[in-house]
Amino acid sequence: MSKEKLVKEITSMEDDFAQWYTDVVLKAELIDYSSVKGCMIIRPYGYAIWEKIQHLMDAMFKETGHENVYMPLFIPESLLQKEKDHIEGFAPEVAWVTKGGDEELDERLCVRPTSETLFCDHFKNVVHSYRDLPKLYNQWCSVVRWEKTTRPFLRSREFLWQEGHTLHASAEEAKAETERMLNVYAQFAEEYLAMPVVKGVKTEKERFAGAEATYTIEALMHDGKALQSGTSHYFGNGFARAFGIQFADQENNLVTPYETSWGTTTRLIGAVIMTHGDDSGLVLPPAIAPIQVVVIPIAAHKPGVCEKAKEVYERIAKVSRARMDVSDNTPGWKFAEYEMKGVPLRLEIGPRDIENNQCVLVRRDNGEKTVVSLDELEERIPELLKAVHDGLYEKALARRSAMTYDAHNMEEMMDMAEHKPGFIRAMWCGERACEDQLKEQAGVSSRCIPFEEEHLSDTCVCCGKPAKHMLYWGKAY
Amino acid sequence: MSKEKLVKEITSMEDDFAQWYTDVVLKAELIDYSSVKGCMIIRPYGYAIWEKIQHLMDAMFKETGHENVYMPLFIPESLLQKEKDHIEGFAPEVAWVTKGGDEELDERLCVRPTSETLFCDHFKNVVHSYRDLPKLYNQWCSVVRWEKTTRPFLRSREFLWQEGHTLHASAEEAKAETERMLNVYAQFAEEYLAMPVVKGVKTEKERFAGAEATYTIEALMHDGKALQSGTSHYFGNGFARAFGIQFADQENNLVTPYETSWGTTTRLIGAVIMTHGDDSGLVLPPAIAPIQVVVIPIAAHKPGVCEKAKEVYERIAKVSRARMDVSDNTPGWKFAEYEMKGVPLRLEIGPRDIENNQCVLVRRDNGEKTVVSLDELEERIPELLKAVHDGLYEKALARRSAMTYDAHNMEEMMDMAEHKPGFIRAMWCGERACEDQLKEQAGVSSRCIPFEEEHLSDTCVCCGKPAKHMLYWGKAY
Repeated sequence: MSKEKLVKEITSMEDDFAQWYTDVVLKAELIDYSSVKGCMIIRPYGYAIWEKIQHLMDAMFKETGHENVYMPLFIPESLLQKEKDHIEGFAPEVAWVTKGGDEELDERLCVRPTSETLFCDHFKNVVHSYRDLPKLYNQWCSVVRWEKTTRPFLRSREFLWQEGHTLHASAEEAKAETERMLNVYAQFAEEYLAMPVVKGVKTEKERFAGAEATYTIEALMHDGKALQSGTSHYFGNGFARAFGIQFADQENNLVTPYETSWGTTTRLIGAVIMTHGDDSGLVLPPAIAPIQVVVIPIAAHKPGVCEKAKEVYERIAKVSRARMDVSDNTPGWKFAEYEMKGVPLRLEIGPRDIENNQCVLVRRDNGEKTVVSLDELEERIPELLKAVHDGLYEKALARRSAMTYDAHNMEEMMDMAEHKPGFIRAMWCGERACEDQLKEQAGVSSRCIPFEEEHLSDTCVCCGKPAKHMLYWGKAY
Repeated sequence: MSKEKLVKEITSMEDDFAQWYTDVVLKAELIDYSSVKGCMIIRPYGYAIWEKIQHLMDAMFKETGHENVYMPLFIPESLLQKEKDHIEGFAPEVAWVTKGGDEELDERLCVRPTSETLFCDHFKNVVHSYRDLPKLYNQWCSVVRWEKTTRPFLRSREFLWQEGHTLHASAEEAKAETERMLNVYAQFAEEYLAMPVVKGVKTEKERFAGAEATYTIEALMHDGKALQSGTSHYFGNGFARAFGIQFADQENNLVTPYETSWGTTTRLIGAVIMTHGDDSGLVLPPAIAPIQVVVIPIAAHKPGVCEKAKEVYERIAKVSRARMDVSDNTPGWKFAEYEMKGVPLRLEIGPRDIENNQCVLVRRDNGEKTVVSLDELEERIPELLKAVHDGLYEKALARRSAMTYDAHNMEEMMDMAEHKPGFIRAMWCGERACEDQLKEQAGVSSRCIPFEEEHLSDTCVCCGKPAKHMLYWGKAY
């Protein structure tokens, strides 16, 4: 397959963004469709990206004092029903196990869509005194939500995620935890995914089922749609009351603790694809790239080239995740393949380079070529990887700035929603009715009230009544 | 709670081994029972052990060229039915999802009990040429088997495991892979779990559903029962034929590839408990111990003690996974607590030690105390951890040797099965009938034909006909 052929097989972003996305996830070998409707197979290259995400994020959780646990896959129906808002929110989209072997179950079990109820059930067993608090737990697992329409990584019937669940002696402490973990997510998105995010709080309409407050990080994709990329929920003591969790405080009074939960999913891989990808395929931020540098010998049949390439590979493998491709494919084919796979740096080395004690390094994010002396490889590779990360972040931030608009009235809002893909910032009165109306008329949903609000005008963009908050609006995945 | 009280709460092994086991898993805070019958909650300390196992084993898989993937949680009934022996083996013990949200499913889905069928379904999509082979895949996930009676880690309706699935161009290569991975398991058991194992092949009766050969590592528990601790299966091309997987070989002929699978589970944690544990609780091999050394200040209220303990802790945290306990519990209470949790080394440091520039290190495996100069901490800690590992392995090996018996006739076999808990080695004619008879009359099952057979006699221990193999027999978990 020639380079041209391979590249031609991807639809361009301009022509059809959705098809471009599907082409990338398949051609970069991130996923395969399965015989199980709505469920995907995560292939080695896709899973390696998830492993990097897990590894980095898990370290951040542990640094902030969290411990990993494992809860059952199933939730008895009676347990799921204990918190009323929660069951209402999730019942329409759960999968039910009704039979074990040949026997009908006495009580049907749902496959966990999320595990608040299981964690509460366990907390009730193990929390008795203020000395047992806080409990700072997390689990890595898969969850199931019976979605009607699905897309790889973005929305599927089963997906991989982490769910943190914490229990605290006071509301203040639980609120601080909710914000702390949202900040961890934002830091992760920016430092490892090179993805700028808006941090904020969801409106009541968009809150998680059973939560008193839902915080979110919202990212803007290449096509101007928003992607909710991580959420952190403050539950007050609603779940704890529903499950009868109590502890003896320092004065030996029985009191009810406060709870939080927070989650991110394999959706982050979709976010990376749609934030950084281009018409040549995937573009991976170096921190989560399974291969950071690919070494490609040029004119590999000439004497000494492969040997020198191998020597170079072995040196850079000590400072980066490197791979060498000595297959008999043409260099052009290899260039296209590793571009498709989003490898941040390509190292080319041929006979003339070897004569000059140099090699050529090509950045995936902008195609920039740098001639590097072989004496300086160990310093230059990490520098260039850092440059790719920074380049990706800056490009994404610049695009988000260019695609963020302020609407002062309904006319502007309608115009932007129709003609200007991106975030729309506008003032809001605080009423659900205006959210519903904007959804219906402009097709946009409220993304969040940002932590850093600006005062754009005095009145609600929709009803004209006095404004309470500035909101980010947008079309969303 | 005093040391005495805490220790008293564990049943002694002698009195009731099963109750001792349950006491240990609960008191060492490895698990909690859940509201989901037959499913356990793995608590932070138990999960940290599993994370260590995963981390070490995953590195061994990657070193041998394997890649991780993720397959769906569900298997459509029609897919599960494609390989006849396989469905027969698993159908009685699967959980069925029959409803998604409010809708009855057109085809019911089983929650994966193992994923051969899903891997084959995927291999069919991605394997076309000899260039695509071998595929060396693994996944870490949970599986569900609807067991009637359950015990934490040993047998539960849901458990965590890894399942390797590989596809090869030739039978020879697939057979070599099957053996290679069994050797990886044996090496893992011995080098990281300090647990000697017998490597061998299962009889046809004990084979995995759909396999042509099943290899196993068998360990001997404290109570003389055998525990199957890891298995590796050679499938020939039966699954590949059932799923229509074919590839073009180098001469461009369409041929059918050969498959293997291999798995280990959270059962390994049960194996560690029952191999090394004692009447004071858990005893962990250092390689998988979440805490390798616990620092306990003695007379912590005296000036300078806590400061010095902290200094020592910070030094040893650089060469081991260390924890310091400065809570206001008594030293005796702390000793009992960390013994219960199986921490390999305890470091005691008090005023007199500080005066003498020394500390006391106590081995969990044998209680041996060593006075160590504070100048030599960094060298002595790793040495002592190695000594604990070696001590555990040697003790387990000696016990296994002492509990392995040779039976030359049915009378000896019956006597050993009744009075001598342990492995029984005996010759076998190769007939299923003799296996069934031994199960019925002596209550023992065949564990494996070891890779290293000995010639104990000419005739089958059961029927007296000419013997074909030496078998390990035993009562098993």
